[in-house]
Amino acid sequence: MTKKKPTILVVNDDGITAPGIKVLIEEMQKIGHVVVVAPDSPQSGMGHAITIGRPLRLDRIDLYEGVEMYKCSGTPVDCVKLAVNKIFKGRKPDVCVSGINHGLNHSINVLYSGTMSAAVEGAIEGIPSIGFSLDNFAYNADFSHCRPYLISITQQVLVNGLPKGSLLNVNFPNDADIKGIKICRQAGGHYVEEFDERIDPHNRDYYWMTGKFELEDRGEDTDSFALSNGYVAIVPTQFDMTAHHVIPELNSWGFDV
Amino acid sequence: MTKKKPTILVVNDDGITAPGIKVLIEEMQKIGHVVVVAPDSPQSGMGHAITIGRPLRLDRIDLYEGVEMYKCSGTPVDCVKLAVNKIFKGRKPDVCVSGINHGLNHSINVLYSGTMSAAVEGAIEGIPSIGFSLDNFAYNADFSHCRPYLISITQQVLVNGLPKGSLLNVNFPNDADIKGIKICRQAGGHYVEEFDERIDPHNRDYYWMTGKFELEDRGEDTDSFALSNGYVAIVPTQFDMTAHHVIPELNSWGFDV
Repeated sequence: MTKKKPTILVVNDDGITAPGIKVLIEEMQKIGHVVVVAPDSPQSGMGHAITIGRPLRLDRIDLYEGVEMYKCSGTPVDCVKLAVNKIFKGRKPDVCVSGINHGLNHSINVLYSGTMSAAVEGAIEGIPSIGFSLDNFAYNADFSHCRPYLISITQQVLVNGLPKGSLLNVNFPNDADIKGIKICRQAGGHYVEEFDERIDPHNRDYYWMTGKFELEDRGEDTDSFALSNGYVAIVPTQFDMTAHHVIPELNSWGFDV
Repeated sequence: MTKKKPTILVVNDDGITAPGIKVLIEEMQKIGHVVVVAPDSPQSGMGHAITIGRPLRLDRIDLYEGVEMYKCSGTPVDCVKLAVNKIFKGRKPDVCVSGINHGLNHSINVLYSGTMSAAVEGAIEGIPSIGFSLDNFAYNADFSHCRPYLISITQQVLVNGLPKGSLLNVNFPNDADIKGIKICRQAGGHYVEEFDERIDPHNRDYYWMTGKFELEDRGEDTDSFALSNGYVAIVPTQFDMTAHHVIPELNSWGFDV
């Protein structure tokens, strides 16, 4: 192809210095012109939060040779909004990639995840968007087996586009022996929280939240199933949260006011 | 009915002292036993954020006569998690109501809204859940025309339940002359942000984010359309974000790794 190199917006939620985004930047540099806008501190679990009551900082940072990079004081979603409006100024990048997250974002985690929320925001802005996550929370996680998939999946999106209103949620197993790619649905599940209750030096209670994911879904077409069987799980994801199938039932209720 | 009074969990994102939650508490007290767990400070725009890197406070507060109330230092979603695990301790409330939000949560706002994310979390926990929002951001907004709908809609949910995986997003017009209730889908739209750039006393740039909602959807079955025509808009909402209709297309791509 003689087409000019695509412009690729790279974001994440673990912060601009995280090893996961470094791997993503390195791979994206092989196929396009990379612009990075990422939080200046870890923003895991920030979901689709935006910064309303406080001002935002956005500063150029020269972290990796030859890459246009900005760190932002806000959330992952703020990063995408600033990128679109202050850096790209209305021009749109050809694709927005988020991650690689240190930790899975399968099943219900799509809601809590800053990584996925940044990709969702990209899609809302009309940019074909992909979130990438690895099943390993460690700072020094080995991302090397993800590298060929980052390029292959991003190139497919660049060539084919994505249907309006959709994006991709891509999760990698930690085991390097990948069996292949499965296109999946989001598994049903939830977290069971435990709150570790402690007493501070001023004799006041406080809690540390910890949670354990419970899979409630035995389907073999889910992201959780694919991951636990050694496959890369790709879930096409949308931000229309309407439960369309429930509309007829509600219409039959007859509200009495 | 001789059935015992339902237990109603009340949450919000504007904070426990907001006028909107007071109206919701007053109405819910007429039909059930009310337990309130709400943020100790405004949490608008927090989306589905949870608190990971910091501990949480949860303290009893006697704000309104005869109501069991707790203020929480965390996000709206944290409030629901603490309510379920530390206050209800596994017993479940019969319904979770969130709001009344000072400001609409129609269309894409369902993603940014702490009010709706608290209701979504209630639904994930298996509790029939409803988010209520009014088209008025003012602190002294008049919620009186919402009152009969709060009871009617909540009682319908208590009687009928809600299909697994779904909840209700209820938005009220600001005009008291309500035409009725419309069951809707989430309108397509997005925000166009403007970043008000300023210089701080240390000569560094900072930005205030402001956004203007742009409706992209001319459908007459949307929440935005219903609201602008004087109806209460109810959108059945789900947290399965899979774009099921895109799965066949992705399966046809043939990923090359």
